[in-house]
Amino acid sequence: MKPIQVGLLGIGTVGSGTFTVLNRNQEEIRRRAGRGIEITMVADLDVERARAVVGERARVVADAREVIANPEIDIVVELIGGYGIAKTLVLEAIRQGKHVVTANKALLAVHGSEIFEAARERGVMVAFEAAVAGGIPIIKALREGLTANRIEWVAGIINGTTNFILSEMRSKGLDFAAVLKQAQALGYAEADPTFDIEGIDAAHKVTIMSAIAFGVPVQFDKAYVEGITTLQAADIRYAEQLGYRIKLLGITRRRENGIELRVHPTLIPSQRLIANVEGAMNAVVVQGDAVGSTLYYGKGAGAEPTASAVVADLVDITRLHTADPDHRVPHLAFQPGSLQDTPILSIDEVITAFYLRLQVADQAGVLAKITGILAEHEISIDAVLQRESAEGEKQTDLIILTHDTVEGRMRAALAQMQALPTVLAPIVRIRKEELK
Amino acid sequence: MKPIQVGLLGIGTVGSGTFTVLNRNQEEIRRRAGRGIEITMVADLDVERARAVVGERARVVADAREVIANPEIDIVVELIGGYGIAKTLVLEAIRQGKHVVTANKALLAVHGSEIFEAARERGVMVAFEAAVAGGIPIIKALREGLTANRIEWVAGIINGTTNFILSEMRSKGLDFAAVLKQAQALGYAEADPTFDIEGIDAAHKVTIMSAIAFGVPVQFDKAYVEGITTLQAADIRYAEQLGYRIKLLGITRRRENGIELRVHPTLIPSQRLIANVEGAMNAVVVQGDAVGSTLYYGKGAGAEPTASAVVADLVDITRLHTADPDHRVPHLAFQPGSLQDTPILSIDEVITAFYLRLQVADQAGVLAKITGILAEHEISIDAVLQRESAEGEKQTDLIILTHDTVEGRMRAALAQMQALPTVLAPIVRIRKEELK
Repeated sequence: MKPIQVGLLGIGTVGSGTFTVLNRNQEEIRRRAGRGIEITMVADLDVERARAVVGERARVVADAREVIANPEIDIVVELIGGYGIAKTLVLEAIRQGKHVVTANKALLAVHGSEIFEAARERGVMVAFEAAVAGGIPIIKALREGLTANRIEWVAGIINGTTNFILSEMRSKGLDFAAVLKQAQALGYAEADPTFDIEGIDAAHKVTIMSAIAFGVPVQFDKAYVEGITTLQAADIRYAEQLGYRIKLLGITRRRENGIELRVHPTLIPSQRLIANVEGAMNAVVVQGDAVGSTLYYGKGAGAEPTASAVVADLVDITRLHTADPDHRVPHLAFQPGSLQDTPILSIDEVITAFYLRLQVADQAGVLAKITGILAEHEISIDAVLQRESAEGEKQTDLIILTHDTVEGRMRAALAQMQALPTVLAPIVRIRKEELK
Repeated sequence: MKPIQVGLLGIGTVGSGTFTVLNRNQEEIRRRAGRGIEITMVADLDVERARAVVGERARVVADAREVIANPEIDIVVELIGGYGIAKTLVLEAIRQGKHVVTANKALLAVHGSEIFEAARERGVMVAFEAAVAGGIPIIKALREGLTANRIEWVAGIINGTTNFILSEMRSKGLDFAAVLKQAQALGYAEADPTFDIEGIDAAHKVTIMSAIAFGVPVQFDKAYVEGITTLQAADIRYAEQLGYRIKLLGITRRRENGIELRVHPTLIPSQRLIANVEGAMNAVVVQGDAVGSTLYYGKGAGAEPTASAVVADLVDITRLHTADPDHRVPHLAFQPGSLQDTPILSIDEVITAFYLRLQVADQAGVLAKITGILAEHEISIDAVLQRESAEGEKQTDLIILTHDTVEGRMRAALAQMQALPTVLAPIVRIRKEELK
């Protein structure tokens, strides 16, 4: 049988990786897919660079539309990124009846519903394993491996840059700014690291996982996003003393009144497996009512790990493209007609525990005052740690771990505590999850 | 559309779990599968017990053949276990054109090739996610999620009973026999625990993973199997001092001259994520050339975790049974015509590092003698730990960690060392893997 012909849009890091992996392992891949898979056309504005990668083995053009218009091409792989031209090209490829593979989490988190609907109408597949957690087959696990379950929550370290930074901050006791510079020098953080360190990239990914886990549309605009830029080494240290690690987690959880969808630094117990995921690695924990807790771990970025996911999607499409479109695996795990419009909860409605650090005057009655305010807001306390103040020092750190509470209540309590004359600096508050 | 009708053969722990999960989550499952899935018939020799579980919701019969012969039944789920009647029934169901779901690792590890061939000829699917690592979707990950990769090795904690025992031995400093009794009392080990503690169950599972990872037939008879019954608390303690944990691993690895397929207690570095998998939990690490290391963690046994895998298989079949049989996911990941007969290596050809504990006379020249023998066999030493002997004691423990070597060489060296008059007891040797 004639090989499946693939057209690549964009041949940067992941594109080159995809080309390399597909060539190196072509024999194994053919044995698995039952048919060869070949990249026969590549579009990139930098035609010279593209030629340097593919040599004579594929036709190189500058205009992506040439690839899409080519009737020989069965599958279009979009690796351009962003919401702009990528969206136009993906929709155009679908209109032309091409199956699409994309690693573009931003595009899917924002415009996924429109894209999947277009694909459904045209009877083609849009595969996106590479969009979340790189080479870890987490989309497949959620969408196919755990279909028996009512998913309760998903929590993941899904941004390698920030996990690398947090690991370094902890192991070396350094502050955020110092580690960021080092991460940039090592290539773990980009020159403009905003998308990573502000949590936006993680929010794109958890938005996609949320839709698949709960059968709701993708709705990035409803996600709560908080990055790691204001984290201080002191809090990482205190957390450790209390038996916790701080990780940037993407979390989505089903509640009675809606779905939580959020990204923020989070204290998690050190003995949890996911707390021990270090460096640029990714890991996702999924809690299902039948299976309990499962965890998926691996490289979340990089040329070949991401290519691993892109090529797996190509194999899936090759294996399944002759299937009756109504009986393929649905894009968002649930049949298109079965999506629900369960509301995404505002951050004020989210339920978590909290870590609080208050710089307080070292005088009698301060603790009573603060715990009184928490009690007034019905927030119960799990643990208190007060740093012994040094000889002659007039202030000290007071660390409080609370039990679960509604965020809105904590916000009100924080405002009251912050107004106390004995609270000497902005209160640090970090959410805490037991993940069990 | 009419629901998919499922017939259950055997309704013990996993069968009841499957019935419960399918009923409790039927609405979510229908939204995912695009069609209802119903257990309409159950066969169990204990008809009363079966009726107590299913009530009026399914027909209960004593004879499994009645289920298989029923033209209304689309999928037969085999949960009887063992090689005997289960094999006959699975083959009969296939002949009748039924798709089959099974959790029976023993059957597949031994007779898998015959069963998959029969299924291929008849154009039906045999799904077996529940056969390996319970609720963890590791078959799907290997067979579909990592298809881009040349798999290099797979190593897993795939028997919960033995991992529970090893965890308890380590944390409480107890010996094997004491912990086994406790595990039996808690229901973590069966009254006859032979299959678990002798490594046979793990060997069935790693045999299946090996076939899928490397595209070779299942061949349980070629697996090397060593259990945990002779493990001593002292070695767990020494391993810990050297920075290692001891786990019962199922390992399969591609070498230039063939495939390693083995189950045995193994030292692994404590900082590896898999070294921190405690209690009855399972985890599998897969090393692929593109993706690097990925890990899959969760519950490897129990009613609902195993049911999670059984029901996921039912959903897969429901989604895909209309697909062209030649374009379904192949049973063993590779197309039937593409399996290779790469030899399984004998244990003498396997390459690992070793932990050795020698009880030696505390006198001059002993270490020189022993290291001399290792050097003679070209086995190089990674670390040596000699316990300081107490006042007046005439013997001591000598611990040696070696670098990688061919097992046959180690066997020869061990025989020579054992013959030394200064070696006072049988030498303990445990294999060691870096898993990186």
